[in-house]
Amino acid sequence: MLRIGIVGASGYTGVELIRLLSAHKEVELGLLTSRRYDGKTVRSVYPSLGEAGLLSFTKYDAAAMLEAADLIYICLPHGMSQRVTPQLIEASGASGTKIIDFAGDFRLADSSLYAEWYGFTHEAPELLGTALYGLPETRGESLPAATFVANPGCYPTSAILALAPALAESLVSATNLVVDAKSGVSGAGSQPKAETGFCAVDGGLKAYGVGTHKHIPEIEQELAAVAGGPVVVGFAAHLVPMSRGLLTTCYGELTKDVDSATARELYSEFYRDAPFVTVVAEGVQPETKHVTGSNFCHVSVTVDARSGRLIATSAIDNLGKGASGQAVQNMNIMYGFDETEGISGAGLWP
Amino acid sequence: MLRIGIVGASGYTGVELIRLLSAHKEVELGLLTSRRYDGKTVRSVYPSLGEAGLLSFTKYDAAAMLEAADLIYICLPHGMSQRVTPQLIEASGASGTKIIDFAGDFRLADSSLYAEWYGFTHEAPELLGTALYGLPETRGESLPAATFVANPGCYPTSAILALAPALAESLVSATNLVVDAKSGVSGAGSQPKAETGFCAVDGGLKAYGVGTHKHIPEIEQELAAVAGGPVVVGFAAHLVPMSRGLLTTCYGELTKDVDSATARELYSEFYRDAPFVTVVAEGVQPETKHVTGSNFCHVSVTVDARSGRLIATSAIDNLGKGASGQAVQNMNIMYGFDETEGISGAGLWP
Amino acid sequence: MLRIGIVGASGYTGVELIRLLSAHKEVELGLLTSRRYDGKTVRSVYPSLGEAGLLSFTKYDAAAMLEAADLIYICLPHGMSQRVTPQLIEASGASGTKIIDFAGDFRLADSSLYAEWYGFTHEAPELLGTALYGLPETRGESLPAATFVANPGCYPTSAILALAPALAESLVSATNLVVDAKSGVSGAGSQPKAETGFCAVDGGLKAYGVGTHKHIPEIEQELAAVAGGPVVVGFAAHLVPMSRGLLTTCYGELTKDVDSATARELYSEFYRDAPFVTVVAEGVQPETKHVTGSNFCHVSVTVDARSGRLIATSAIDNLGKGASGQAVQNMNIMYGFDETEGISGAGLWP
Amino acid sequence: MLRIGIVGASGYTGVELIRLLSAHKEVELGLLTSRRYDGKTVRSVYPSLGEAGLLSFTKYDAAAMLEAADLIYICLPHGMSQRVTPQLIEASGASGTKIIDFAGDFRLADSSLYAEWYGFTHEAPELLGTALYGLPETRGESLPAATFVANPGCYPTSAILALAPALAESLVSATNLVVDAKSGVSGAGSQPKAETGFCAVDGGLKAYGVGTHKHIPEIEQELAAVAGGPVVVGFAAHLVPMSRGLLTTCYGELTKDVDSATARELYSEFYRDAPFVTVVAEGVQPETKHVTGSNFCHVSVTVDARSGRLIATSAIDNLGKGASGQAVQNMNIMYGFDETEGISGAGLWP
Repeated sequence: MLRIGIVGASGYTGVELIRLLSAHKEVELGLLTSRRYDGKTVRSVYPSLGEAGLLSFTKYDAAAMLEAADLIYICLPHGMSQRVTPQLIEASGASGTKIIDFAGDFRLADSSLYAEWYGFTHEAPELLGTALYGLPETRGESLPAATFVANPGCYPTSAILALAPALAESLVSATNLVVDAKSGVSGAGSQPKAETGFCAVDGGLKAYGVGTHKHIPEIEQELAAVAGGPVVVGFAAHLVPMSRGLLTTCYGELTKDVDSATARELYSEFYRDAPFVTVVAEGVQPETKHVTGSNFCHVSVTVDARSGRLIATSAIDNLGKGASGQAVQNMNIMYGFDETEGISGAGLWP
Repeated sequence: MLRIGIVGASGYTGVELIRLLSAHKEVELGLLTSRRYDGKTVRSVYPSLGEAGLLSFTKYDAAAMLEAADLIYICLPHGMSQRVTPQLIEASGASGTKIIDFAGDFRLADSSLYAEWYGFTHEAPELLGTALYGLPETRGESLPAATFVANPGCYPTSAILALAPALAESLVSATNLVVDAKSGVSGAGSQPKAETGFCAVDGGLKAYGVGTHKHIPEIEQELAAVAGGPVVVGFAAHLVPMSRGLLTTCYGELTKDVDSATARELYSEFYRDAPFVTVVAEGVQPETKHVTGSNFCHVSVTVDARSGRLIATSAIDNLGKGASGQAVQNMNIMYGFDETEGISGAGLWP
Repeated sequence: MLRIGIVGASGYTGVELIRLLSAHKEVELGLLTSRRYDGKTVRSVYPSLGEAGLLSFTKYDAAAMLEAADLIYICLPHGMSQRVTPQLIEASGASGTKIIDFAGDFRLADSSLYAEWYGFTHEAPELLGTALYGLPETRGESLPAATFVANPGCYPTSAILALAPALAESLVSATNLVVDAKSGVSGAGSQPKAETGFCAVDGGLKAYGVGTHKHIPEIEQELAAVAGGPVVVGFAAHLVPMSRGLLTTCYGELTKDVDSATARELYSEFYRDAPFVTVVAEGVQPETKHVTGSNFCHVSVTVDARSGRLIATSAIDNLGKGASGQAVQNMNIMYGFDETEGISGAGLWP
Repeated sequence: MLRIGIVGASGYTGVELIRLLSAHKEVELGLLTSRRYDGKTVRSVYPSLGEAGLLSFTKYDAAAMLEAADLIYICLPHGMSQRVTPQLIEASGASGTKIIDFAGDFRLADSSLYAEWYGFTHEAPELLGTALYGLPETRGESLPAATFVANPGCYPTSAILALAPALAESLVSATNLVVDAKSGVSGAGSQPKAETGFCAVDGGLKAYGVGTHKHIPEIEQELAAVAGGPVVVGFAAHLVPMSRGLLTTCYGELTKDVDSATARELYSEFYRDAPFVTVVAEGVQPETKHVTGSNFCHVSVTVDARSGRLIATSAIDNLGKGASGQAVQNMNIMYGFDETEGISGAGLWP
């Protein structure tokens, strides 16, 4: 059994990871760290977790973590991971420990982007580019050899899966792209804030991060790799009154004369070997509710010839394929487990 | 007191109209027609309505309506209005009765668009172009003389208010526009349907009408009048798990070298005399929750120079400024009442 | 114009009070105090408020408040009011200033109850019993002469309105009562907390304050005055995933042989002169959604002869009749204004 | 592999059953019948279902069903099961087919109760009393021998699990009980109705079935078996704006001098061997959100000595332990599978 450690295990992605891993056949949960809940049982904080709830949160200690875990998931906020991960990376060379990092801190190859988009000077720039960007559908071939994986952001996962086939097939211009992304509230993390309080969110909708969201350079970097050249996106994020779920609507300027049926075939072909991406049938639109609690991504593509646009939408659970589910999928491929082990469950509907 | 009649008074827009008009100083509610609830008191169907609830719904009869009402609001579904309105128009010439129609049936000037977008051959094409498009912020000068007003659709209201200043000032290209619109569920009407059931909607999000929504030609027609030339929009609508509220995020290709502050000034200037449009301050984003139950529209504009885009968002209550509130505003201007009478109330928050 | 001051104006009840009073014909808003937002415009914090939003929050100062206001609303949390109000009371004797207090601090006549239920020793016990309990339907006759009013709690308002007629008519035993109360989340206040975060609340339901809620002695005290003898209630509160709204289901042991129709008549008679309490028709149940944003209370009563129970339910908006709307109603009666001025609006539905 | 048939597989309980059984190791899904969706693939109607979605719905045919299935789940509405099930029962004697029925049609032993509470004369009264009431925590010992199981209602499951220990231990009077039950909207079924539309439900709350709900005699019958004598409950159901989840708050008149700690011990002892019932710790209250998507039931018990009440609350997922999860649990015990197989998953939180 692979021994698992989770750093920052008491946030939303940590809890989802515990839920998924506690039903995974090939692993056993070991150290779960949490500053907030040090010493408390998991169950006392998260009564939804059954057996796994009998474990206790502990304070983070690098040496203890390295000894207890074969694979370490790092579920720390942006900017915190860069302070914790380098030490683990250094030590892991000897121990063979592998790392999957949920933060954005090692997703971008260009250190100057951190100052521009994240607002901090990166403290471990020498490690940038050493982490594999863990989107199995575009980088999956490199996963079996990877020891350090940067788990993708939720918006990038959704946007890349919606646009990659169109860019790979040069159906659209790479520099006239609009990505309009909408997320449930769990994407904002579990710390109490005025703007994520129930009364502030329920029955309302707003945009945020208009042209300035941290995920923009990540989307552009990864789509550029697919397109084979620079990609520029106009981007706005939106906060939707639902706990889980993320829908992205992408608009590209058509550069080839295709119809919707052909585009759909090209998308289906692109995702032929991807067990978690479903290109939905004609006339159907992805709904976040169809993938709640699951690792699936539903994608549609429509050619709007009249306006000269290809419009692609994708739906994921931001805590599933957008975070913890994807991290388990990455682990499964890294260790040669069945790619769907522990994450094959259907969406919870209604 | 102006005597009011409402045809199709028992749907969401009708109920909202009753709520607003029952507190309006210059009018009195007269005939309220409803096929579904003929003979029932308003209160027995809609207990939220107080005094006005003592009125009863009746079956529609043209002669009775013309006799009872000085102003007739027609709250029928698309395709139904074209069968009822022509007879009222004809008779109203003699009686001086005026009409405000909520359907899309007389909003478009070109009859061929009805076959293409609405799926029916228009039965009164001779009336097309005779109705004034009732968006006070762009067509307000003609309202005092109008006797037949086509009340705008909810998505068009929001999209036009977000983009009109940018097109009027030639800040963006008129043919490289994306309008990503998100609506609460009341926009889908009050008839029970599987896809608007609570369990189908709650906790989920989906796109619909991608490139095919009926409101697309309306947006393009009215923005063309502002831009002084053809306008083409890429458009997708979305269903959001909230009862009321509509947010539109619009992306235009910048054609002038402006910054956000300048764009905001131009927007503020454009809406200087518009009592219901607020251009929000720098760093703020409109939220639908800020305008719930009100006739206000909050607009923001951001220049994203990096991607060469102007991104404008607008928030309305789809039943307020997006329907019934706007219809009252139109009436106020048509009859020389204070423009804000009956609709000056603040949004209900939280 | 009556000049209004609000202490603690930036919480949910304060914002609702500003919304209501800014449309009230007989008053003008003056000082609005807020520690959190001192110096900020109301609009910058609460964009939903229109004209009133141009006012600014200031720090609290007793002398300034007494000079600026004829009527002071105190919207401070429990335990804070007792430290602020006594000074105002003392000074108000000379100035004629009147006070309406939203906290629980002066609702109970017996000081020992504060130690038991609120967990603090009351700091101004000499003032207990000097405030009039401001429920117009049971204490309305004393309101015109009142200068210091303790505005009722939301649960007590709902429970008392549901049970008062039954106890007044001795339909049920006063000591075998169950009050099962359910509230929307705004009842928990506007301070960010983990348990009122959107993701913690949405899609869930829980009980709290089981047998221990602060509102229990208040319900018992006021119902005892109606019953003419001691009242004991079994009580549990519940948190419901909605922003506004409060429904209370009350179960009493029948002591008279009445049927539902007779009970309904007795209820209607009891509330004959109460403009804001509606006893709903046979076969109908109150819904919180029917009173959202309004000052109305809908009440039903059912005799379940089989189980020997009278079951009464009542629905209010916890920020309306449960707080700010009721405070305005109290003011209207205190000052001889029309009882419904500023609060006659229908519920916002849907 | 046990071959499974589901009659009425396209409603909410059917879909949840498909979700659970498609991940169950000991069974294979066979015939799925649906009148509405005959001939359609499961996936085209319910895109959330993965592999199982490739199956197709068919029309119901008794002979085909008996041939295809070893175990038949009947997910028909109340009143329909009594017309379908008798034929299957008769034939199953020969074939050894077993039946688990979700309707209320065979839960009550006394046929006169159907006329009184369900409004129909039972068409197969001779079968009443032959079905085992499938609540494993009270009737589990008889399950291994059962061939015909009446799966409990959602409200009864929750009420019985909250009150059974108190009645078994004679902590409370059996005839002075109040059961206040609150359910998510999926409990009302999947047929589109005005009162379960999103806009009718969202942001609101109401009572229904006050003293008249069909589940009342079921609760009394089963609690009487535990109490060893007649039980009478005052009951009201409530519709809560959430898709899944059911919370019941039960109030009993204390007849023994116990404190909360002792009561909790007695409850824990009662459920010692029940893998799906968790008695929560002191100071904690069950939340429906903690059991969403799972088969767990969380129970609390509080002694409110002051009012002479024992107050017990229980939280379940109405489609899990309240319907489909419980049906799988029943199957597991009937066939000697691990009791938790296929239903051991933790709740989906947040």
